[in-house]
Amino acid sequence: MTEPAPHLADYATLDLQRVDRRGYPEAVYCEGKTAEQVAGIAAAVRSRPDAVTLFTRAGPEHAKAIQQELPEARYDLEARLLAWPADPPEPSGGLVVVVSAGTSDLPVAREALLTASYLGRPTELVVDVGVAGLHRVLGQRQQIDEADVVVVVAGMDGALASVIGGIAACPAIGVPTSVGYGSARGGETALQSMLCSCADGLSVVGIDDGLGAGSVAARIARRAAG
Amino acid sequence: MTEPAPHLADYATLDLQRVDRRGYPEAVYCEGKTAEQVAGIAAAVRSRPDAVTLFTRAGPEHAKAIQQELPEARYDLEARLLAWPADPPEPSGGLVVVVSAGTSDLPVAREALLTASYLGRPTELVVDVGVAGLHRVLGQRQQIDEADVVVVVAGMDGALASVIGGIAACPAIGVPTSVGYGSARGGETALQSMLCSCADGLSVVGIDDGLGAGSVAARIARRAAG
Amino acid sequence: MTEPAPHLADYATLDLQRVDRRGYPEAVYCEGKTAEQVAGIAAAVRSRPDAVTLFTRAGPEHAKAIQQELPEARYDLEARLLAWPADPPEPSGGLVVVVSAGTSDLPVAREALLTASYLGRPTELVVDVGVAGLHRVLGQRQQIDEADVVVVVAGMDGALASVIGGIAACPAIGVPTSVGYGSARGGETALQSMLCSCADGLSVVGIDDGLGAGSVAARIARRAAG
Amino acid sequence: MTEPAPHLADYATLDLQRVDRRGYPEAVYCEGKTAEQVAGIAAAVRSRPDAVTLFTRAGPEHAKAIQQELPEARYDLEARLLAWPADPPEPSGGLVVVVSAGTSDLPVAREALLTASYLGRPTELVVDVGVAGLHRVLGQRQQIDEADVVVVVAGMDGALASVIGGIAACPAIGVPTSVGYGSARGGETALQSMLCSCADGLSVVGIDDGLGAGSVAARIARRAAG
Amino acid sequence: MTEPAPHLADYATLDLQRVDRRGYPEAVYCEGKTAEQVAGIAAAVRSRPDAVTLFTRAGPEHAKAIQQELPEARYDLEARLLAWPADPPEPSGGLVVVVSAGTSDLPVAREALLTASYLGRPTELVVDVGVAGLHRVLGQRQQIDEADVVVVVAGMDGALASVIGGIAACPAIGVPTSVGYGSARGGETALQSMLCSCADGLSVVGIDDGLGAGSVAARIARRAAG
Amino acid sequence: MTEPAPHLADYATLDLQRVDRRGYPEAVYCEGKTAEQVAGIAAAVRSRPDAVTLFTRAGPEHAKAIQQELPEARYDLEARLLAWPADPPEPSGGLVVVVSAGTSDLPVAREALLTASYLGRPTELVVDVGVAGLHRVLGQRQQIDEADVVVVVAGMDGALASVIGGIAACPAIGVPTSVGYGSARGGETALQSMLCSCADGLSVVGIDDGLGAGSVAARIARRAAG
Amino acid sequence: MTEPAPHLADYATLDLQRVDRRGYPEAVYCEGKTAEQVAGIAAAVRSRPDAVTLFTRAGPEHAKAIQQELPEARYDLEARLLAWPADPPEPSGGLVVVVSAGTSDLPVAREALLTASYLGRPTELVVDVGVAGLHRVLGQRQQIDEADVVVVVAGMDGALASVIGGIAACPAIGVPTSVGYGSARGGETALQSMLCSCADGLSVVGIDDGLGAGSVAARIARRAAG
Amino acid sequence: MTEPAPHLADYATLDLQRVDRRGYPEAVYCEGKTAEQVAGIAAAVRSRPDAVTLFTRAGPEHAKAIQQELPEARYDLEARLLAWPADPPEPSGGLVVVVSAGTSDLPVAREALLTASYLGRPTELVVDVGVAGLHRVLGQRQQIDEADVVVVVAGMDGALASVIGGIAACPAIGVPTSVGYGSARGGETALQSMLCSCADGLSVVGIDDGLGAGSVAARIARRAAG
Repeated sequence: MTEPAPHLADYATLDLQRVDRRGYPEAVYCEGKTAEQVAGIAAAVRSRPDAVTLFTRAGPEHAKAIQQELPEARYDLEARLLAWPADPPEPSGGLVVVVSAGTSDLPVAREALLTASYLGRPTELVVDVGVAGLHRVLGQRQQIDEADVVVVVAGMDGALASVIGGIAACPAIGVPTSVGYGSARGGETALQSMLCSCADGLSVVGIDDGLGAGSVAARIARRAAG
Repeated sequence: MTEPAPHLADYATLDLQRVDRRGYPEAVYCEGKTAEQVAGIAAAVRSRPDAVTLFTRAGPEHAKAIQQELPEARYDLEARLLAWPADPPEPSGGLVVVVSAGTSDLPVAREALLTASYLGRPTELVVDVGVAGLHRVLGQRQQIDEADVVVVVAGMDGALASVIGGIAACPAIGVPTSVGYGSARGGETALQSMLCSCADGLSVVGIDDGLGAGSVAARIARRAAG
Repeated sequence: MTEPAPHLADYATLDLQRVDRRGYPEAVYCEGKTAEQVAGIAAAVRSRPDAVTLFTRAGPEHAKAIQQELPEARYDLEARLLAWPADPPEPSGGLVVVVSAGTSDLPVAREALLTASYLGRPTELVVDVGVAGLHRVLGQRQQIDEADVVVVVAGMDGALASVIGGIAACPAIGVPTSVGYGSARGGETALQSMLCSCADGLSVVGIDDGLGAGSVAARIARRAAG
Repeated sequence: MTEPAPHLADYATLDLQRVDRRGYPEAVYCEGKTAEQVAGIAAAVRSRPDAVTLFTRAGPEHAKAIQQELPEARYDLEARLLAWPADPPEPSGGLVVVVSAGTSDLPVAREALLTASYLGRPTELVVDVGVAGLHRVLGQRQQIDEADVVVVVAGMDGALASVIGGIAACPAIGVPTSVGYGSARGGETALQSMLCSCADGLSVVGIDDGLGAGSVAARIARRAAG
Repeated sequence: MTEPAPHLADYATLDLQRVDRRGYPEAVYCEGKTAEQVAGIAAAVRSRPDAVTLFTRAGPEHAKAIQQELPEARYDLEARLLAWPADPPEPSGGLVVVVSAGTSDLPVAREALLTASYLGRPTELVVDVGVAGLHRVLGQRQQIDEADVVVVVAGMDGALASVIGGIAACPAIGVPTSVGYGSARGGETALQSMLCSCADGLSVVGIDDGLGAGSVAARIARRAAG
Repeated sequence: MTEPAPHLADYATLDLQRVDRRGYPEAVYCEGKTAEQVAGIAAAVRSRPDAVTLFTRAGPEHAKAIQQELPEARYDLEARLLAWPADPPEPSGGLVVVVSAGTSDLPVAREALLTASYLGRPTELVVDVGVAGLHRVLGQRQQIDEADVVVVVAGMDGALASVIGGIAACPAIGVPTSVGYGSARGGETALQSMLCSCADGLSVVGIDDGLGAGSVAARIARRAAG
Repeated sequence: MTEPAPHLADYATLDLQRVDRRGYPEAVYCEGKTAEQVAGIAAAVRSRPDAVTLFTRAGPEHAKAIQQELPEARYDLEARLLAWPADPPEPSGGLVVVVSAGTSDLPVAREALLTASYLGRPTELVVDVGVAGLHRVLGQRQQIDEADVVVVVAGMDGALASVIGGIAACPAIGVPTSVGYGSARGGETALQSMLCSCADGLSVVGIDDGLGAGSVAARIARRAAG
Repeated sequence: MTEPAPHLADYATLDLQRVDRRGYPEAVYCEGKTAEQVAGIAAAVRSRPDAVTLFTRAGPEHAKAIQQELPEARYDLEARLLAWPADPPEPSGGLVVVVSAGTSDLPVAREALLTASYLGRPTELVVDVGVAGLHRVLGQRQQIDEADVVVVVAGMDGALASVIGGIAACPAIGVPTSVGYGSARGGETALQSMLCSCADGLSVVGIDDGLGAGSVAARIARRAAG
């Protein structure tokens, strides 16, 4: 016997008033939701084009289901992020610089970058500057000096956060990634390493949490006098 | 045979130019250093009264040794923090509100508060507002709304960070404490709990790291337009 | 050479007298059993329609094998639970309210709900009330006040259990789920967080153990004077 | 220079209205608080003799400080619990039976017992019934059958909770203790063992959390029809 | 360009003299070896039919490759064990009783049983006797009394090892299995639980190590006077 | 007000019939018991001189209290073991050889040795044969060949158990010790290392559990045909 | 809409000057990079045939993409290593001996061997010498004596590193592998075991890090006087 | 009754021929040995003044006992190391540079330095160069370039090892220290961080293992052509 299609209220309680209350977009975490469920949510937010909705950790199946409800939504395959409406707001506030330690950290770095961008900040991306080649880090010194907040995305030993945290004068946010094998322990090593860094001005978000980092960075930079 | 008194260069490389380069005070971590060593450092910083030096995790023995070199230094017994010169600079920038979940979290909360204060920010302290009594949290709503950055100090389940992170519109910094027994696992539970909170705008520093939290908060609030 | 079909006694010792002794149904945990094995068990319980048998963690293969022996059995795909006979007993005792923090926690929440229901209690389900949106939690206040026992199903930081445990006057049971990534550590963070919650009246079952939670809740509510 | 005595509001926010709102006593966790701080709290609750206040994890120093403010308070040295007023309320509701696996588990068992007792339930204590001597467990069968809720306090392998959970028809609450060495890992083994027990009707509180267990048991038994 | 077939000496150093030296068969662990590699080893042992060779953790691909070299080898699909020559030696020495807690523990239990059998001991298997149904355990009392060594195979809380260890007068060997989810933590909970059991006469082998348990049991029973 | 002396029944349930039922002595674990409690137990066993009672993990305070009740009891300071009556039974059964990796492992090795001895087996002790000096191990080859069961006591990497397990033809029992620092992790490394050793015939007891090892060894050797 | 092909600068910052600065080849870690990305890197290094580039952890898809850009590159399937140019330099410096504990450790052992070889050292491989068969280890004594540095590759208990570290007079490097199941814990046991070995002259690299071991060995041997 | 003084053979098997066989001194690990035991060993080595004996982790009590037997032995209080004969051999081989991240890492750094020195190498010490002040690290560039092997001693995030490993052309050895609190987790974070560093040429010894690091460094440098 076929079960009837579930109603949105059976699995989700949307919070469309949040935009008004908080001035921030809604983020819908797709992993662990069925394609049918995210489609239901996509249909529900269609009535609020004045606010940005971000669908995060969206695999191809999720993306397809969402884009059937919101055809103009933009899907960034690498960041696994889907945004609707497609265009980020006009940038305002301080500059968010996202620094990525290695090529494999890029998906998380882009998630942070796009999140900050859709929250309305100007952003820049610096790629593949590992600590083992210190001159590459030091070569990016100027961009770090211009930043109002720096997001450092790194797996393995996470040492880049300590090094950049020591250089930067603005607040820095570390994002440990699950990149690496063996002793990297799924990001736990980078996480703990960042947490006990001596660099002051450094705080940390969860493993692979590009969304969180972008969100914190956007809040900090919104308040930056520049 | 008696060993001669060690020279400062044998155990520490001070960085007195850091103030000029970074505009921030030097923090000397006392735990694991002998009273003799911190006294040597205290003697060395005497020549730079224009900058603040914070001696953190200073036990009574450390405090005594430091105050023999810097008699005007102020010692906060609860925060185990010693500051010299004794008076914090004139407050400027945005407001830092430190919220403490329980009485036992106070030492860490005060370390954060004093650090932000010596870094030049206006600060306020809210004590003993646990999640189990939600009305107490909600009763502090106004102070949270006025903050430019909120520091949430909590041990045990660390749930206060999620709750306040969900209320606050400004950036929030979670400080897990090692308060609690058994499943609190020395702060690890509060730490991981904060790291996977759904509250956006929340980042985290290491367990019991009041110094780090105060330092991050001061940087963020310095840039706050208000 | 083909091995002969195994006999039930080669792999399982059923306990059909348990119903008489304890007044409770038998639960057959399917994960790790072959379809052939669960079919053998299904065939064996057919002789006891007076008692409810629950097949838990039953994948589609298990469900198919069971329904060939017990065609009238009901399969809840989301909870991965199969019940025979299909209809729960007439509800009696106190009210079990199951609260789910997020959409992804629904499978475990439904397992708890159905278990309590097949054990004979009246049940209600509240979905998607995360701590980050505190007003959503507070909006469910009335249902929580009417409950005789509350089951709180939450992954990530598990903070919902602390918040509801602090509100509820009845006993609360926390069910940590393996939902989440990185610092959620497969439910370990939610588990430890719930275990060191300050909310009194809160006890906890294992990660994703909807069956256990429903079973505990049904026992407590059976005894509730109402 | 001598610091002035701190005011209660500097370190604690009491919740004296909680009794009215919830019908439960206030529990003050002493570990991590100074003698001066608990004395301050003791002085503050003196105005509410109509409600029970429990001071838990109270060492001799705490006890002395509290009894100077509340001379009639009763101190149970083994449970490290101090109660004021000294006499528990007249017992009502169902019977709480506390079972202790070994002599070393007694402090936690007594904390659970006294908590349930001060919350108004009739209680009984069964001591030193380890699983390795199964006949000792089975010898207590009658008391377990008469209970409305059983609290099982056990360290090491925590197997007693599985065994009693399998025997009891009422809800059971497991309390892992930090008793044991090596592989007992401070109670973590007993905790995880209880959490994945197959016994239905068993839920768990944190390591050494006699207060929590007593509190849950009292709530469950209050509702027991008997 | 095609690489030439590797020689046995490139990847393995067989120890065919071990039988003479130790009187024990060779065990070849297949997991992590290619089908080609195990085939090479199978070809090499063909010259020693006087000794038993056990191929353990052999998947279907391994089995197929081995049986092409040793067609008479016997493959036990459940235990993933392949033995050559196919028939175990005539039983001698004391009785090995293998007790399995649940249906899902059977593969490991059978690996232990077959290993002891191919090492020349008489063996018996008891299935599905969980602690939650204590009467089922007690119902097997006679077989346990007749054993010269008992192997207890259990996942989840591993409590069966404590219970049987407390009953048995002969040595007992616990085998934790990776059966279970969540708090079972892949067998770690059962392992630690068995290690801190109070039952004397109990020792433990690694998680899922049926081979090790069978081997230890066979050694102990070989020496049993009966 | 002075509390009256507690009765034995308030904190312990002795099992004096165990000797009759099982033929084994009672072991009283002292750690975590007060001197008063062990004295009470000592007084109670005085009526059963026909059986051996072992008081384990007995500090000087415990020893003093026990010897006031049982003046002839023998106290082994290094093993922290107290036996009454003082003389072990006449040795019978197979030979138990205890091998200790380092000087610091001696307390645990002696606890195993004495336990096996008081359980009636002939015993020998081999000290300080670490794997890093392989010739020292090989120099003890003859004693290992004569053993009916070998107990290997080792901390750090625990590699001695693998090496001796590979040499010995009889069953071997590994006892990981908490000796070592840093990566030894309180014995956890030696434990896990022994558990995944490839040496067949090796089983393991808990960290520092000399009592358990001696008890298992005595059971195995009792049955040894010699 | 099709995204344009990404530019190398969007995901990687090559360091082709490193060869000049350091005299070492570039290693490109493929896991976590797309085939497209490694192809882009392969194209970029084509201009530097005077230096060796190693592509490590390269699956078949990576290999195919790289060989389209660098057709002469050599792919070692077992080590998952791709080298370009294909021929290692003329060997110079001291001898690197790689010892592998089991057949399943071979992929990591070959990665170490090839790395040292492409870095210009003479190398030898010893396979399948487990500690459980000590005579096999001792049979390789001569090769170990001739080595200038020994790399020991072992999973499970990692005891081979302790044994060989105790025999060798030259520096030894341990490489724990993730081979094994249960208590091997993905290589963590071998790692910790090697780290607390008593053998002097032993240092360790990360789990499965054949590249790191080969690189360290080559550096040490380059400096060896012979 | 007084026990007679134990004989050396009861607790230790010295290996005085090791010097001849291996050309290396004996290291006696004092922690966990009694003062009486180390005195016995000290008396035994007196007959071999041609070889160096190092007593490591020697507290004041150990030192006093040793110096009564070997009055000319030299005790380094900070490194807790006692050497006899007092003077290191004439330096030969390559230069060992020990770099210490912070003042609190000095005890371990000195243990490494003295070990290498007593093993006959020329040594240099660089103190207090943390990653957070990168210019301090870069200021030591010349010493690192002159080294034949670098030992990097660091706690907390251990990032200094990655940075120096990336700079140095010679082999580098990381020594994680247990310095730090909270997330430093007793050195585990620094350890894992170093193990997954991308710097090639870096290997690692156990937490706080200055002895091991000095020993490895001396072996490597002995072979250095310079």
